[in-house]
Parts: sequence; structure tokens; C-alpha cells
Amino acid sequence: MYKYNEQELIGLYSSGLALRGQIEEIADRVWDGGFRNLCWIGIGGTWASAQQAVVHMRERSALDFFAENAAEYLATGNRRIGEGTCAVFSSVTGTTEEMVSAVRKLKASGAKAVGFVDTPDTPLWELADEVISCPKNEQLKFFMLADRLMYREGVFPEYDDYYEVLDRYLAADLAAVEREADGFAKAFCEKNRDNALTYFVGAGALYGATYSYAMCYWEEMHWMRTKSIHAAEFFHGMLEIIDEDTPVVVLQGEDSQRPLTERVIRFLEKVSGNYTVIDSKDYPMPGIPDRYRGSIAHLIVHAVTNRIDLNLEEMTGHDMNIRRYYRKADY
Amino acid sequence: MYKYNEQELIGLYSSGLALRGQIEEIADRVWDGGFRNLCWIGIGGTWASAQQAVVHMRERSALDFFAENAAEYLATGNRRIGEGTCAVFSSVTGTTEEMVSAVRKLKASGAKAVGFVDTPDTPLWELADEVISCPKNEQLKFFMLADRLMYREGVFPEYDDYYEVLDRYLAADLAAVEREADGFAKAFCEKNRDNALTYFVGAGALYGATYSYAMCYWEEMHWMRTKSIHAAEFFHGMLEIIDEDTPVVVLQGEDSQRPLTERVIRFLEKVSGNYTVIDSKDYPMPGIPDRYRGSIAHLIVHAVTNRIDLNLEEMTGHDMNIRRYYRKADY
Repeated sequence: MYKYNEQELIGLYSSGLALRGQIEEIADRVWDGGFRNLCWIGIGGTWASAQQAVVHMRERSALDFFAENAAEYLATGNRRIGEGTCAVFSSVTGTTEEMVSAVRKLKASGAKAVGFVDTPDTPLWELADEVISCPKNEQLKFFMLADRLMYREGVFPEYDDYYEVLDRYLAADLAAVEREADGFAKAFCEKNRDNALTYFVGAGALYGATYSYAMCYWEEMHWMRTKSIHAAEFFHGMLEIIDEDTPVVVLQGEDSQRPLTERVIRFLEKVSGNYTVIDSKDYPMPGIPDRYRGSIAHLIVHAVTNRIDLNLEEMTGHDMNIRRYYRKADY
Repeated sequence: MYKYNEQELIGLYSSGLALRGQIEEIADRVWDGGFRNLCWIGIGGTWASAQQAVVHMRERSALDFFAENAAEYLATGNRRIGEGTCAVFSSVTGTTEEMVSAVRKLKASGAKAVGFVDTPDTPLWELADEVISCPKNEQLKFFMLADRLMYREGVFPEYDDYYEVLDRYLAADLAAVEREADGFAKAFCEKNRDNALTYFVGAGALYGATYSYAMCYWEEMHWMRTKSIHAAEFFHGMLEIIDEDTPVVVLQGEDSQRPLTERVIRFLEKVSGNYTVIDSKDYPMPGIPDRYRGSIAHLIVHAVTNRIDLNLEEMTGHDMNIRRYYRKADY
């Protein structure tokens, strides 16, 4: 298996879960200090993760929370952001232009910023009022913070058991999913590597993952054309351009919006001869009870798409680290 | 000019503006009755219009307002919707499945519903607590309601003058835009009618218009493939797949997010040989002061894209009223 190192993968997920103590301390300080609303702010991939956090919280929480796009906030502003706002963001480099300006602006308005900044001693690392530095696991870190706040809100009573289970099983189970999915991923890449355009459909906490998978992986890293669409919206336009051979990939999770992707799949069964379903439910996660799978389905699907990415890279020889324009050209 | 009837167009826009008395009465009742938050709810094209209304309100308002997708609301719920919520929606047919269920659900939660339902005596017409029935002008109607509420909020002091100006000039000016844009539209269609895939980029109150133009017009009505993207997000993935000949259309308005599309255009100038900018600023609107153009830019651009649609229909012979699957197949 190309670039598969089980121990490294387990270590990677475990390092995310190991942040729980730090995240709990920060979440508890935020909770105890009081806040008016919670703003998940990002751009590009981190905007997608912000939307995932919001959908995840909508399953339970009555807090006032929302997602904000950094560039839109800079241009238009948002009067909900100010004194009493807790803004949460994530950044790998700590230097993303729109994010640096947006965090500066929201702090000037009186908001506090909690940052997951992978690279210390960078502008975003310095701007954050509370900061955690540990690479990767962006969604997991967001969900851990959201979960702790929901625990304090009183709407996540099984919090301790849930994380005990994740600590015990998640890392090894996800590494096993990558191994299991590799055969499927290779066949998928052989079939789809030359697509002129590939459609991706998702819903729930997997919609943000679908959006960023199409945009940040296929477009940005593989230079392949995609369109992503929310399953709820599929029936209000996109359905009309589905021919027998149109490549459509449905990323299906196990949260409250699963019925929305199920409906798309029923439609595709009738009219399409070229669709693929990547369903978290197809992958066992030994030790993890069914009732907890909805919240981790995006991680299961990510383990599958990660094998697609690596097989594509191996097959096409296109190095995923090369960029043509991003952070290279001046624009 | 194919299917161009100036008097009919002027009559159409005027009929929208003529609803102001009715809309003001409803908005004033909503305001005087008090409300906790304002929910713009829709699906497909009306979800796009809901997002446009929200961006428009963000320019000024400190009220608590948000957009909600009907199918997501049905699947996941939204604890912000309940007693004290004023939900606003629009429907041409009055029967859209997801909308009927969503309005039923939000009313059961204690929310009130204001509906623009073009067809009387339909399920949505009956469900609305307040209802206005007059075909077309969906965005104009949404913005008129938003504007009246913002006037009552005290953040739209020029309201009377603004609408006096629109009443006097908007309808004739928009009809003139369609006439002026027809030559451009014909040339655009000749160049782009056989595109395998066309990209659309927009921002601000025009982002929703960009999303729905790509999806509800090109995909649903012309059966042509598209991808739409917010200008803020363009630089976080999509830029990498721009080749010299990739067809990109930028819909540019004049609100606070104009700098976001300007940045995309600067990038395209450098790397693309096949992009088109449809800029509201290129069309004079005699009698309408510059300071009011930001709020009507989406209508100007719509007048241009309407000529594209009609030229495409004439050129390809593909009747825009035909659907393959929508409301035909059972799914």
C-alpha cells in the first residue's frame, strides 16, 4: 500500500485525541467566563470545517452559534460579532492572509479568539487569546471543542463515555478503515482518473467535508475538475444534467441528514450508470457503538478518501504538494 | 430581439414595486407585534434568494436574522426557530414538497410564517399567516420586506427616498438594460453554447444569484454543466484548475463585497484567456443615484443573464420549460 504506515496513522489520530485535556481547559474557561455567541470562522478548507462544526452542534445545541467566512466578514462585517463573541478558528500555516486580517478585526470588535494554529510563532498564533498547537485533525479538534461546550450546556450527558470509547478505539479503527478501503480506492481511481468533471454530493456534517474534498483535494491538489452540491439541493437543478455516464460520488454519513443522501442515491439508481457511494456505514468500527457513529462518520469517510488521494497520486504521478498559483502568484 | 416586450417587462417590474403598500403593512404588523429572530427559509432557487436577503441585511442590520434550508431544517431541526421567529419564504407553485413540510414544522414550533406565494389556494398559500400573491420578482419582494424591517429598525433612514426613486425609474431602466445587453448576450452565447463546463463566480448579494443562475437556469433549464463558487472561496482551490481556455463568468455587483470579485478578475486577467465579466456597473440606470446601486445590482445582472437565457434558447432550440426529471419522475 502506497504511503500507508499504520503506526504513524494511529499516532496521528491519537495525538488529536490527546489534546482533550487542553481543549477542555479552554472550553471550560470560555464557558465559565460566559459568552453571548460562538462564531466558527474560516476560509476555504477551514470555512468548510466551520460549517461542519455548526451542523454537528445543530444536532443538539440551543446555544447561539454560526459559521462565518473570513473574507466576507472583512468585506461586509457581521454585527453579531463583538463583545461576548467567542470566535474559533484553525490554521495550518498561521499566516493565511484573510484569516490574519479577520481575527485582527474581530478582536478589535471585542470578540475573543480561540485558535488551533499548527505552526507556533506565526501571526495567527500570536493573535489568538487561547491557542492550541498540534498539527492535523482539524475537524476532530473542532468537534472536541464543540462537544465540551455542549457538555457544559447539558445537552451531551454521555460525553465522558463517548470520549472514553474514542480514546480506546478510534485511532486503530480509522487506520483499519484505510487498509480496508484501499482496494476500493484503487479501482475507483482507475475508473475516474480521467474524468473531465466529477460531481460530489453530501449532507449533514459531511457536507462541509464534501465541499472541501472536491475543492481542496481534487481541484487544489489533483488539478481535477469537480462540482460539489448539498444533497438537499441536488433535486433543485443538478438532477437535470445527470446522464447515464455522468460521474457522481455520494459521500454518505450517519447523522440526521442521512435521509437526504439516501434520496439522491435512490434517484441515481434509476437514471445513472456511473455513480459511487462512499458510505461510512460500510466500515465497521469495532468497539464503537452505533449511537456514536453519526459524529465520527466524516472521519470514516475521510479515511476512505485519503486512500483515493494517495492512489490517485501514485497512479497519475501528480504530486499533491505542487501548487500552480496558490501562495505562488501575486493576486 | 427574441421574446423581448418592453411594455411587458416594465409592467412586470412595476407590479413588484406596486406590492410595497401590502408589504409595508405586513412588515409593520411583524415589527409592531415584536419578534425574536427572522428566518429566511427556502430550497433551491428560494434558498439562494434567502441567502441574498441575508447578505443584503448584513450591510446594515443588527437584528437576529439567518437563512435556513428547508430540507436541512426538516432533517436536523434548528433550535433558533420557534416562538418569536418570523419565517419568510417564497414559492411559485405553492406546492414544493420540502417547503410545505418545513412551513408546517416551523408553525408547529410556534413560529409565524410570511409567504410570497404566487399561486393562491395552494398548500403554502394556506399555511402562511401573512401571504402576498403576485407572480415573479422574488428577490425584489424579499428585499422590500427586509428594507421595511430595517427602516423600522432605524438603520435605513433614506427608505422613502430610495423607494420613490425605484418607483420612478427602476422598471424602465431594467427593461433598457435588457435591450442594451442583448448584443453582448448573443455573442456570449455563440462563444459559450458548447462549453462542456462553465464556471460562475460571484459575491455579496450576487452570490445567491450566481449560485441559482448556474443551478436553476443553466443546469435545470438549459441542461448545461456548471460550477458556481463564491469569490471569497475561489482562491482556496478552484484557482488551480484554471487553464488558458477554462470558461469562467464573473457576476459582479456594487455592494461591500465588490472587492472580492475584483480580486478574482485581477487573477483571471493574468492566467485566463476565456473569462467574461458581467458587471452591473457597465449599465447606466438613469435617475438612480450611485449610492443606491449596490442594493439593485443583482437586478441589473439578472436583466443581462435573462438575455443570455433567451438567446441560448433561441440558438439551441432547447425550450427552457422542459424538465427531464424535476416533478416528473418519482424519487
